[in-house]
Amino acid sequence: MKREVLAELLEAVKSGGVSTSDALEQLARLPYEDAGMAKIDHHRTLRLGLPEVIYAEGKTPEQVAEIFRRMADRGGAVLATRAGAEAWNAVKAQVQDAEYHALARVIGLRERHAATLHLGPIAVVCAGTSDLPVAEEAAVVAEYLGVKVSRIVDVGVAGLHRILSQREALAEARAVIVCAGMEGALPSVVGGLVAAPVIAVPTSVGYGAAFGGLAALLGMLNSCSPNVTVVNIDNGFGAAYVAAMMLRAGAKSA
Amino acid sequence: MKREVLAELLEAVKSGGVSTSDALEQLARLPYEDAGMAKIDHHRTLRLGLPEVIYAEGKTPEQVAEIFRRMADRGGAVLATRAGAEAWNAVKAQVQDAEYHALARVIGLRERHAATLHLGPIAVVCAGTSDLPVAEEAAVVAEYLGVKVSRIVDVGVAGLHRILSQREALAEARAVIVCAGMEGALPSVVGGLVAAPVIAVPTSVGYGAAFGGLAALLGMLNSCSPNVTVVNIDNGFGAAYVAAMMLRAGAKSA
Amino acid sequence: MKREVLAELLEAVKSGGVSTSDALEQLARLPYEDAGMAKIDHHRTLRLGLPEVIYAEGKTPEQVAEIFRRMADRGGAVLATRAGAEAWNAVKAQVQDAEYHALARVIGLRERHAATLHLGPIAVVCAGTSDLPVAEEAAVVAEYLGVKVSRIVDVGVAGLHRILSQREALAEARAVIVCAGMEGALPSVVGGLVAAPVIAVPTSVGYGAAFGGLAALLGMLNSCSPNVTVVNIDNGFGAAYVAAMMLRAGAKSA
Amino acid sequence: MKREVLAELLEAVKSGGVSTSDALEQLARLPYEDAGMAKIDHHRTLRLGLPEVIYAEGKTPEQVAEIFRRMADRGGAVLATRAGAEAWNAVKAQVQDAEYHALARVIGLRERHAATLHLGPIAVVCAGTSDLPVAEEAAVVAEYLGVKVSRIVDVGVAGLHRILSQREALAEARAVIVCAGMEGALPSVVGGLVAAPVIAVPTSVGYGAAFGGLAALLGMLNSCSPNVTVVNIDNGFGAAYVAAMMLRAGAKSA
Amino acid sequence: MKREVLAELLEAVKSGGVSTSDALEQLARLPYEDAGMAKIDHHRTLRLGLPEVIYAEGKTPEQVAEIFRRMADRGGAVLATRAGAEAWNAVKAQVQDAEYHALARVIGLRERHAATLHLGPIAVVCAGTSDLPVAEEAAVVAEYLGVKVSRIVDVGVAGLHRILSQREALAEARAVIVCAGMEGALPSVVGGLVAAPVIAVPTSVGYGAAFGGLAALLGMLNSCSPNVTVVNIDNGFGAAYVAAMMLRAGAKSA
Amino acid sequence: MKREVLAELLEAVKSGGVSTSDALEQLARLPYEDAGMAKIDHHRTLRLGLPEVIYAEGKTPEQVAEIFRRMADRGGAVLATRAGAEAWNAVKAQVQDAEYHALARVIGLRERHAATLHLGPIAVVCAGTSDLPVAEEAAVVAEYLGVKVSRIVDVGVAGLHRILSQREALAEARAVIVCAGMEGALPSVVGGLVAAPVIAVPTSVGYGAAFGGLAALLGMLNSCSPNVTVVNIDNGFGAAYVAAMMLRAGAKSA
Amino acid sequence: MKREVLAELLEAVKSGGVSTSDALEQLARLPYEDAGMAKIDHHRTLRLGLPEVIYAEGKTPEQVAEIFRRMADRGGAVLATRAGAEAWNAVKAQVQDAEYHALARVIGLRERHAATLHLGPIAVVCAGTSDLPVAEEAAVVAEYLGVKVSRIVDVGVAGLHRILSQREALAEARAVIVCAGMEGALPSVVGGLVAAPVIAVPTSVGYGAAFGGLAALLGMLNSCSPNVTVVNIDNGFGAAYVAAMMLRAGAKSA
Amino acid sequence: MKREVLAELLEAVKSGGVSTSDALEQLARLPYEDAGMAKIDHHRTLRLGLPEVIYAEGKTPEQVAEIFRRMADRGGAVLATRAGAEAWNAVKAQVQDAEYHALARVIGLRERHAATLHLGPIAVVCAGTSDLPVAEEAAVVAEYLGVKVSRIVDVGVAGLHRILSQREALAEARAVIVCAGMEGALPSVVGGLVAAPVIAVPTSVGYGAAFGGLAALLGMLNSCSPNVTVVNIDNGFGAAYVAAMMLRAGAKSA
Repeated sequence: MKREVLAELLEAVKSGGVSTSDALEQLARLPYEDAGMAKIDHHRTLRLGLPEVIYAEGKTPEQVAEIFRRMADRGGAVLATRAGAEAWNAVKAQVQDAEYHALARVIGLRERHAATLHLGPIAVVCAGTSDLPVAEEAAVVAEYLGVKVSRIVDVGVAGLHRILSQREALAEARAVIVCAGMEGALPSVVGGLVAAPVIAVPTSVGYGAAFGGLAALLGMLNSCSPNVTVVNIDNGFGAAYVAAMMLRAGAKSA
Repeated sequence: MKREVLAELLEAVKSGGVSTSDALEQLARLPYEDAGMAKIDHHRTLRLGLPEVIYAEGKTPEQVAEIFRRMADRGGAVLATRAGAEAWNAVKAQVQDAEYHALARVIGLRERHAATLHLGPIAVVCAGTSDLPVAEEAAVVAEYLGVKVSRIVDVGVAGLHRILSQREALAEARAVIVCAGMEGALPSVVGGLVAAPVIAVPTSVGYGAAFGGLAALLGMLNSCSPNVTVVNIDNGFGAAYVAAMMLRAGAKSA
Repeated sequence: MKREVLAELLEAVKSGGVSTSDALEQLARLPYEDAGMAKIDHHRTLRLGLPEVIYAEGKTPEQVAEIFRRMADRGGAVLATRAGAEAWNAVKAQVQDAEYHALARVIGLRERHAATLHLGPIAVVCAGTSDLPVAEEAAVVAEYLGVKVSRIVDVGVAGLHRILSQREALAEARAVIVCAGMEGALPSVVGGLVAAPVIAVPTSVGYGAAFGGLAALLGMLNSCSPNVTVVNIDNGFGAAYVAAMMLRAGAKSA
Repeated sequence: MKREVLAELLEAVKSGGVSTSDALEQLARLPYEDAGMAKIDHHRTLRLGLPEVIYAEGKTPEQVAEIFRRMADRGGAVLATRAGAEAWNAVKAQVQDAEYHALARVIGLRERHAATLHLGPIAVVCAGTSDLPVAEEAAVVAEYLGVKVSRIVDVGVAGLHRILSQREALAEARAVIVCAGMEGALPSVVGGLVAAPVIAVPTSVGYGAAFGGLAALLGMLNSCSPNVTVVNIDNGFGAAYVAAMMLRAGAKSA
Repeated sequence: MKREVLAELLEAVKSGGVSTSDALEQLARLPYEDAGMAKIDHHRTLRLGLPEVIYAEGKTPEQVAEIFRRMADRGGAVLATRAGAEAWNAVKAQVQDAEYHALARVIGLRERHAATLHLGPIAVVCAGTSDLPVAEEAAVVAEYLGVKVSRIVDVGVAGLHRILSQREALAEARAVIVCAGMEGALPSVVGGLVAAPVIAVPTSVGYGAAFGGLAALLGMLNSCSPNVTVVNIDNGFGAAYVAAMMLRAGAKSA
Repeated sequence: MKREVLAELLEAVKSGGVSTSDALEQLARLPYEDAGMAKIDHHRTLRLGLPEVIYAEGKTPEQVAEIFRRMADRGGAVLATRAGAEAWNAVKAQVQDAEYHALARVIGLRERHAATLHLGPIAVVCAGTSDLPVAEEAAVVAEYLGVKVSRIVDVGVAGLHRILSQREALAEARAVIVCAGMEGALPSVVGGLVAAPVIAVPTSVGYGAAFGGLAALLGMLNSCSPNVTVVNIDNGFGAAYVAAMMLRAGAKSA
Repeated sequence: MKREVLAELLEAVKSGGVSTSDALEQLARLPYEDAGMAKIDHHRTLRLGLPEVIYAEGKTPEQVAEIFRRMADRGGAVLATRAGAEAWNAVKAQVQDAEYHALARVIGLRERHAATLHLGPIAVVCAGTSDLPVAEEAAVVAEYLGVKVSRIVDVGVAGLHRILSQREALAEARAVIVCAGMEGALPSVVGGLVAAPVIAVPTSVGYGAAFGGLAALLGMLNSCSPNVTVVNIDNGFGAAYVAAMMLRAGAKSA
Repeated sequence: MKREVLAELLEAVKSGGVSTSDALEQLARLPYEDAGMAKIDHHRTLRLGLPEVIYAEGKTPEQVAEIFRRMADRGGAVLATRAGAEAWNAVKAQVQDAEYHALARVIGLRERHAATLHLGPIAVVCAGTSDLPVAEEAAVVAEYLGVKVSRIVDVGVAGLHRILSQREALAEARAVIVCAGMEGALPSVVGGLVAAPVIAVPTSVGYGAAFGGLAALLGMLNSCSPNVTVVNIDNGFGAAYVAAMMLRAGAKSA
């Protein structure tokens, strides 16, 4: 669109319909970033095939359904995170092909001719069963982003044999997402077992001095394994997004 | 002493030298706790053979030396913790038999006829070499309290094989003291490996979001291993004291 | 099970059915920790007779009941902590012999031929009546772990005679669990009265600058009594578990 | 002075030298607070005989000496708190009758015809010897404010007999200042022993999770003894000032 | 009671019915503090005429009513703080003469022959109308403790003329309780206006960076007026108790 | 009014009806601030035409309606902030001309002959749609204060082209209010784009380590753009008030 | 420069030397922001006459002097804040006309033909003498920015008459900067006295629970005066910059 | 080694020298993790060619030099981070080929036949010149890990044109490391400009409410750009390590 405007202007300059000095003024005042930046954004979406994402928390079911439907109409993939049952009911009434992942609280719509899971694999690891909703948000989102996911559940550090018995699955992973609440020690342990980046997700699981995930967050930021990075508390979505970004960017560099 | 005063008073009542109502008054006003409480304290020291302890931080070398000498004159064991080289120079000029443990910053004087290390063994574990001073404070103090100590050094969770290779030493321990800074994950891992109480000592090792030991402290308080308890940041002395107390109290119950 | 796999492999080596170099490869890749670590875990449970524990918070009544029933079917003791009335209703419909301790919010099932209370005694002390639920969680759990418990209630430091009048019960205790909210001063006072380890449990009782138990937690971590260790806020279960661990470990060392 | 200005104006109105409307304007613009408020301040100082106080921290020795000398010249009592040896050297060179209280870090000058210690007595209690400088600041300042002080030292709650043996001194006190670091439990215990207000002073004594006095501060704010109030960390001066204020105000109400 | 036991023992010693050595043993084991400390407590209640106080928060209406009735039966004054409408309904069904102060959330029962308001006066000041419930808790409790109260409402520092116009009432006060949320600046301003102790009560009024009263609490602890002390957030009861204690203790010293 | 009292007194002095010394006493005791300060307040309202503002949070709908009606009766403009639907229902039943701004949660009543929007313009910018309620509170309040407002919505820094495309609107603004939650980065970016003061409003939008707006608040306080100032979390009202004050004060100085 | 490039391109299009599609590509890739944004920046500096500012903290004296000299060579005004004596010595050796404001720690160089102080006046108020360096930084910087400044010193809220006596100076101010440490109450009080925006600067003055300026910062953010905004702790420079920005922006709107 | 032991055992089983049941026992007790885990570690180092890293902070120059020399003797690459000039002097005296990067405080030794920079490129971006040491630590470490680095300096968000003019360099980056102190807003802005993972490094640059990097840390954790992850404050090393890990793991998946 913007591109067309530019083309028209240039044609007018060529044809003499607009003087170069007038054109110069127009270009100097051009809200270029609308064109330029949006183009980049557009390019990125096209190249990466990333679905658009709705953060459903704090929106009414009707709002979520309306936005979802509009995005679906544009034909690409759509995701809504932090979506409860009511939001799901509203969405499915409007968009037939949408799917609901209840534990992950994610509503998704795949592109019609979406590629298979062609990136990864990654592992999504969680310390306890209470961390599962966050881990599932990460796993489901990663799959919508085209990443193959291996789920490893309930492998907290108090019983090391549980995580140690998963070393083969971990060894295959190109990136590992580790979700843990309480003391948040699992990323450090996993970080020592793999030759891949570890994306740590502190969860709000715990009580008392867990302070809503603060203990796990601080633990992960201070990890003695140097291959650990951290995202916000309960941010399974962000971890999946970063993992997909890593795989795509890494693929480019090969 | 106090006991004698009481005995005298009762004799005086018996002989009629003091009326019962006067005795009643005296007893009601008796600073009983001086007798009673001090006696308990005295009993405890006698029974446990615990040395008296000086916290040297914030005292001048002269003050440390003076207190140390007075305690030594009473004939029992003496300990000074958080004692630097200057305090040690001051003490050794006054008390010939004292010994200095530089890394632990502990000055000690053993009882002349002290029992051998008859309690334990315990293990004192530390995550990294930077945690060593705290671990040594724990180990040295425990030994002065009659506990046999097995030292396990530099076994942080980023390389699990290091702690796993120490399982035999851990299995023998009646209690385990674990010192760790940064994310403080080691106590949870050790807690899962042993059938003994774990006393976790967060250390101030780390930087940035370690916040002077706060991250490790919160991590340990939220340990997913239920056999973990926690003492103050850098409090190696307290951990050793509690471990000795456990072993003595446990011995009583056998 | 795993053991059988190993035995089979060795027999095959002996019989020549598998070459030593092939066996070597298999052993090198063996997920040994499944065997080894699980065995240790198994050993520990057998040796200590510890019941399995379900943390009911955040689980549906149905989930708690289902897990409880499965564990009960295996014949050992079972505990569920932080269990409300609804969880209890779900469990008792499935497991006839289960018992509910409403104040402690603990559901328990004793082993059929469980030993009597053969460890301890310990004292469970609480500062105010509001701290009772946490104290009862500790007391009930300790009893399920085979520990004899002496309960001492409402002995806050603002009226010292209350705790002083309990000195005999305290003197007998092999370990003392002290639950207190607000300023959390009771463990320091009790620590000075006994020659046993004190496990301090900060509670979330209080308001304003109590900050959900933070004030009590910090107070206990800074206790001037060196025989005090600390567990997480409201963690009555953990305190009982540590106390039982101490007594067992101590018994071994006798 | 100001009063005179007002009187003059009114006389001028009466004599017709100033019209009422002009006087009205003058009165409306009158910086009354200069008169009124300053008068109150003046009255307060006169009535209470309170010395003027210099907070020496962050001032050069020369500045402290200069301000001290000027105040001394006006003939009343003067106090400088948080004053080190250098400030003292500077002051004594200028004001002959000044006295230095090294432990309390207070420089004082008594009024020539100052009343004897006619208020109180109060007790100034400190938990450990490290709290002594703060306690001495409180005690010395209280004495300069005309209050009789009974010092009670090293009576921390880990050895209750120490504070219990001081009950007589405590019983006589009209107010009790309690200085304590670490867990700050002593004010609660003292609060339960006396029928007088307790002014709690948290000190920065401690390490690790003491967080520079925060643990003691929170503990004292959450005291289970309802007769406890709190001042800032290490604020011995403030505690003494409040105690004096209480005694004076109380005296008025008798 | 206890006293009688002692008297009997002494008579038995005198008469020879008990040997002095047996008596010595009994005395050494005597739970003296039961006698001694309880006596003090008893004395204090008698001397001060303080009603017993129930903290109703976290208790069921039935529990509050039951405790209230029992205390009322003993004939003295009774107070329940933090009591909602339901607790009040339960209490009034059991204790006819009880009164409810809805804004203050206090239930009270006066002693039949209670003295008139013979102490004070004090002023209870609050910054905004939202602080009123805390201020009323302070005012009502103070009145039950025999203190005459002058209420000063809605005099926040953003409109100084409001507090300045109350200077006469403030000047008469023997102590001033100041309740303020948000930035908590009012106690400093009041502290500069009066020659009496100021008891500052931070309230949880505010939002955002008020952090539930933390901003007001820190402000009050750092007051530049030296006659300010602080109690816990929303602790109107404590402020009233301390004020009453001051007046009584002050009266003694006159 | 007060002025009349003064005038009368002065006339009486002039006429001799009141002696100068009596007048002096009256003037010395005069609650001058009632006159003086209230006059200033009155002047300010008159001069600025600022409506009176009711903070509705924590008040019952009836209370809000009652206060609103009384203020409306006095004939000026009235505002109620943080007002929900129930408060609105109560107000509109009493004050016909009131208007409700649902998203902003503001109830307003314009002065009958109110000036048009004669100040500004300012821009009110918000980072995301979740920040809209706070931004609308700011925008609506500013308009009631006579300021022309340009709304710029959903221009978070993750897509710079959105804010860059609004540079013309920003360039016209005499002041910019920027509302942002999460990391709160938008004010810094806007600050670099404009030659006007930026008033940053952190919002409580976010989760986890957003800590209820703390992350945004700290970010804004540390802004690398020197033209940024900050108000409390979610304080749209305050930002609008400050902006209006700036424009009025600036206008004066021209 | 950039403009020329554009002009050239357009001429080439016109002359047919570049095809419109090639020109379109070039325009789409144009690093427009280099031209556009920098131009805006340039415009802003020219229009406002703002000096360039060096933050000297963390730079060596040589670095400060070198940057200062280069800026001075370009002929405009220059400021260096947080500059100690050593930085000053280095600067004055290189730039003869520079001036040093020791208390403010500001080095300045005025433009040769700088306008007189043509904006304002503003008032810079500080609560205590310890806040003076921060207040002086604000005052000196404001003067370099062309603002007339009225200094009001040592008017803390504990003695209200001090600030009340300055009401005339305050009333003239178009904006007021208030610097205060400890409880930070002064901005609320000043905010109530003036009809102008108040820029509050919390200072790190204080000890204990002042927590390095946190208490003052929170107090100011929660000010009950709605015309108060806040900048970072000790950020006198920022406050002055914002005040100047307000006055310039306000002037535009007149 | 360990492998040999296993081989021997298997041969003995085959030859009948050891019974299968005895072999089973030996295998069950085998400290397998020594072999297995260490082998993995070894493999990882071989495969990735990662140098060994010494954290020099808290070690004496002699200790750093000694460890460095030993590692160098083994022939591989070596890195020491947080190394000051004294550590460098000690190292260069022992290891001739070592190099010092003063700004980054890194001492490095390249492998003799090290590969060229074959991974990447990545961009290392820093907000201000004060963040340079952290950014250089990241850049230098990344280069030692075989990653090509593009440095982008001083592009803080207050002047957007600076970062926007670097879009080409950013677009080429496979991963972007962003170092920023103060409000830490730069990663969000960069995150919106690139289709690559952003590793955010909060720095301790700033003062007042920056709280040693906490403000930047919280800002980054709450980034509205979903491709942002975070490491500890000032942890340039960790960011580089993660970036290298990403590129290697990504390369594998291509």
